Amino acid sequence: MTVYSAPARDMRFVLHELLEVEKLSELPGYEDATVDTIDAIIEEAGKMAENVLFPLNQPGDQEGCLFENGVVRTPAGFKEAYDQFTQAGWPALAADPDYGGQGLPKALRLIVDEMVCSANLSFGMYPGLTMGFCNALIQHGTDEQKETYLPKMIEGIWSGTMCLTEPQCGTDLGLIRTKAEPQSDGSYRITGTKIFISAGEHDLTENIVHLVLARMPDAPAGIKGISLFVVPKFLPDDQGNAGPRNGVTCGSIEHKMGIKASATCVMNFDSAEGWLVGEAHRGMRAMFTMMNDARLEVGIQGLGLAETAYQSAVAYAKDRRQGRALNGPKEPDQPADPLTVHPDVRRMLLTMRAFSEGARALAYWTGMQLDISEKHPDAEARQAADDLVALLTPIIKAYFTDEGFNNAHLGIQCMGGHGYIAEWGMEQLLRDARITLLYEGANGVQALDLVGRKLPSKFGRLLRRFFHPAMTFIEDHQTDKDLAEFVLPFAKAFARLQQVTLHIAQQGLKNPDEAGAASVDYLRLFALVLLAYMWVQMVKVAKQKLDDGANGDASFYQAKIATARFFMAKILPENSALFAKIMAGSDSLMSFEDAAF
Amino acid sequence: MTVYSAPARDMRFVLHELLEVEKLSELPGYEDATVDTIDAIIEEAGKMAENVLFPLNQPGDQEGCLFENGVVRTPAGFKEAYDQFTQAGWPALAADPDYGGQGLPKALRLIVDEMVCSANLSFGMYPGLTMGFCNALIQHGTDEQKETYLPKMIEGIWSGTMCLTEPQCGTDLGLIRTKAEPQSDGSYRITGTKIFISAGEHDLTENIVHLVLARMPDAPAGIKGISLFVVPKFLPDDQGNAGPRNGVTCGSIEHKMGIKASATCVMNFDSAEGWLVGEAHRGMRAMFTMMNDARLEVGIQGLGLAETAYQSAVAYAKDRRQGRALNGPKEPDQPADPLTVHPDVRRMLLTMRAFSEGARALAYWTGMQLDISEKHPDAEARQAADDLVALLTPIIKAYFTDEGFNNAHLGIQCMGGHGYIAEWGMEQLLRDARITLLYEGANGVQALDLVGRKLPSKFGRLLRRFFHPAMTFIEDHQTDKDLAEFVLPFAKAFARLQQVTLHIAQQGLKNPDEAGAASVDYLRLFALVLLAYMWVQMVKVAKQKLDDGANGDASFYQAKIATARFFMAKILPENSALFAKIMAGSDSLMSFEDAAF
Repeated sequence: MTVYSAPARDMRFVLHELLEVEKLSELPGYEDATVDTIDAIIEEAGKMAENVLFPLNQPGDQEGCLFENGVVRTPAGFKEAYDQFTQAGWPALAADPDYGGQGLPKALRLIVDEMVCSANLSFGMYPGLTMGFCNALIQHGTDEQKETYLPKMIEGIWSGTMCLTEPQCGTDLGLIRTKAEPQSDGSYRITGTKIFISAGEHDLTENIVHLVLARMPDAPAGIKGISLFVVPKFLPDDQGNAGPRNGVTCGSIEHKMGIKASATCVMNFDSAEGWLVGEAHRGMRAMFTMMNDARLEVGIQGLGLAETAYQSAVAYAKDRRQGRALNGPKEPDQPADPLTVHPDVRRMLLTMRAFSEGARALAYWTGMQLDISEKHPDAEARQAADDLVALLTPIIKAYFTDEGFNNAHLGIQCMGGHGYIAEWGMEQLLRDARITLLYEGANGVQALDLVGRKLPSKFGRLLRRFFHPAMTFIEDHQTDKDLAEFVLPFAKAFARLQQVTLHIAQQGLKNPDEAGAASVDYLRLFALVLLAYMWVQMVKVAKQKLDDGANGDASFYQAKIATARFFMAKILPENSALFAKIMAGSDSLMSFEDAAF
Repeated sequence: MTVYSAPARDMRFVLHELLEVEKLSELPGYEDATVDTIDAIIEEAGKMAENVLFPLNQPGDQEGCLFENGVVRTPAGFKEAYDQFTQAGWPALAADPDYGGQGLPKALRLIVDEMVCSANLSFGMYPGLTMGFCNALIQHGTDEQKETYLPKMIEGIWSGTMCLTEPQCGTDLGLIRTKAEPQSDGSYRITGTKIFISAGEHDLTENIVHLVLARMPDAPAGIKGISLFVVPKFLPDDQGNAGPRNGVTCGSIEHKMGIKASATCVMNFDSAEGWLVGEAHRGMRAMFTMMNDARLEVGIQGLGLAETAYQSAVAYAKDRRQGRALNGPKEPDQPADPLTVHPDVRRMLLTMRAFSEGARALAYWTGMQLDISEKHPDAEARQAADDLVALLTPIIKAYFTDEGFNNAHLGIQCMGGHGYIAEWGMEQLLRDARITLLYEGANGVQALDLVGRKLPSKFGRLLRRFFHPAMTFIEDHQTDKDLAEFVLPFAKAFARLQQVTLHIAQQGLKNPDEAGAASVDYLRLFALVLLAYMWVQMVKVAKQKLDDGANGDASFYQAKIATARFFMAKILPENSALFAKIMAGSDSLMSFEDAAF
């Protein structure tokens, strides 16, 4: 069976001992983000995830969503859980206080999101998309739009969607055909079909409000002629409540591999009333605000699933007895030893653990940068943090989801045949995880964003936001004998990253296909180096804590160091292969004759 | 949508141009295995796979098997397809002529199996298991047992199973509790519960005959007290037909991630009549005969699925238009370029292709060795071939299934969001593929077999069966400038394989956990070197054919060389990371405190 209990101890380690996230409380507006508040959030969100959301995860997968006559019914218990979730105020946590939010740091929202996704990814989709909606509206909406929609969304009684994809276009949004006809009253009539719309229709909220990409009659062709519109299912009445029905309906829901309790809808807009958000023909800019946030969230989904897969695999491996330790029976009075005696089972468990813990550190660090980028009084500090978030977002999205999937894959393998049986729950984690590599920009698109936009941006300024502190860390610690076994492999991998970065930058100028061909391997190499950077810092903290007496928690810190050792020995070496593949260039890809495929 | 057409041209290339498989016709008993016969088999089996089995694959997944009152109904069309399959004589292809078989080489059976698994893995399970049953009975059964069961099984009107797993034991069969009580007439009464029994109950055949591992009352504890029994569902009557019902029933079928049209049964044996196969307490030996064959077959399943995933991804990528080539529009008159212009899409497609074609060569080569090991007049030649098969079997099982799964994974990624939607079929390939890493010995167990049994066996003799020809090839071609770009990376990877082999052999003697910790990475490194060996030979043949004029087929040979180039540039470099991980030793795995998991 899958199990989940919120990894509160590890979260506190990352937040308080590694990142000192409570320093965010020094930023104006974040005064409430104290250690106590943060710990209370971990505890309360953990309980909700464990007791309310996780028990619905497997039944939700089995029942799925039901579509009938344009109406979507979520699985039994989802509505009640959603009400509990919103009544506890979770959607308001990091939302704007001007519209009913609690205004806490976004880093804390990521922690809650991790737990929600660990417990029930399908459920998490509903409030998650609403959050993305709110961010886009806050940055690009008019005051009237904000006042109309944000309080209801932050309260959770209305929900939001992003309507981008059409049958003929997913990645290439320049091909969008949905039309927006201007009306004399300043509104628009939206007509077209959108597909793959998560939470497009459901029974959790009183109203569903869509952000829709569409094209005005006079719009330039392609991506520069796309505008963004807000289109509610029920038009707000004079009191701001859900009023008359608008011309938007759900045509069907998809039969998917996983996240079956999340309704993925075909949405038909038939002269639906809508209002422009932001500037005409600049819809992609607004959509990117939403997408960037969503990409980070999807990365967190990968982390969340990875954690549940790890915990469940550990529970099985400790309980299940098969065979004997290769060096002789460990528990001779039992008919067999537990699976944990087998080196390869340990390899799988530690691979999962090293990812989850390393990724958690990287995610929360990025979350902190997000908050600094918004609230720091110093413009340069804000810019530096913003650069870092821009650099890290595609890496987190792609690497975390690749590895979240891989953790579920290893989790199945640890369980043997039981991993393949629905009742045991692990195969659902893999099916659920598979979507995260696809939506909000397939992982290959993330890699192109990294090499094509982020790497050359501002003459490499984004890159330097990571390269400089990494170099400083290496310089500061290269003679530290106690850390040498961690610093040296990190420094070696980092040197390779620098070398391929230069290579791609130079080659890519001459031939963009060189950068494109290297992109996925480059992103992965970058991610490994980032995780190594996290691990070496975590080791430093753990060693310090042990030196200081560890407060009765020595085994926690020792495990942290042991996991770091595994990461350096068995995960990080992948960088050598990635380096070789990148340096092998694009020729073997691009010279292959299309007709021969 | 998924598509499949039998890769007849590539099969003929491997069989006739690379391996000259028709030379098998020089072996006594294989006189019929001429080029014409082989080509006719490819053509006829291809038609059956494409037209009969493939159309049932997706409906079979959607409908699944139905269990009601002990009866299992396979999906609509399966019974008719099975009848067509058996009436065409496919199960008889490589079966013993003494019992109605056609006695063709087993290499040819692998080719048919590849096509069946490409088209419909669930369907392939039914005749596949029967084949394994026949092999075990031929080697270990009494003449009476053979005469009773084999003709019916080879005709396909009866089917077979392997009943190993019990709730408390999968890998560790020493824990088996099913009892076999000897009767005065020489028969046994079998009582116990077996789980995960593929094709344990279904509606395709008149009778189902089980090979069951059980323990006699006087049996020694553990693995050396297990005996093998044949237990039919219906006891054969005096005419040898299905007579009275035996005490074996299906208790339920599993709800699985995939292969939903293959019934995975809980089988209850309640004083069922059975007969000993082979010697008492030596059941594991007999079972290993069956398992070895089955492991090779499961490897072929990985290849089969990989091929369908590749073909389907290519079809989608050529048809779907999104975005523009990074170097500027390739088809400016169209709204967007086809996906194949994107470097990373090409990387995914070529990764899939390089595996499928390389694996096909390795599989058929191994199949030929299987035939030589049985039919060659020279005992030393038989032994050499037998050694090679023993060495390659765990590698093929684990690597082919890892990569079959990976091909389906990449296939989904090529399709973007559509890859996640059931109607498109690709996600089924991934779900189906996932089981192949688990059954017939999880892939970690294959790796242990390789390092624990095959590597040290006969003082390294099995290893030398590959190492010697590989070294000879390198020596013979190292100065060949035309082949240098292929021979050099192969030779480098091979040198690394030699080095880690020595390392593991030495370290493993001191500490078995060292070998265990390295096992999975070692198997993968070995597999990469084997595929490189296949690719470099295929390049040699292709270049020769081009030099000879290529018979109007130049583009085929050029694509072969281009794919080899991709393999060397983008796949083989993984060996450096595997090397580093192996050399990092077992310490980081084994010293982790169990309690800290």
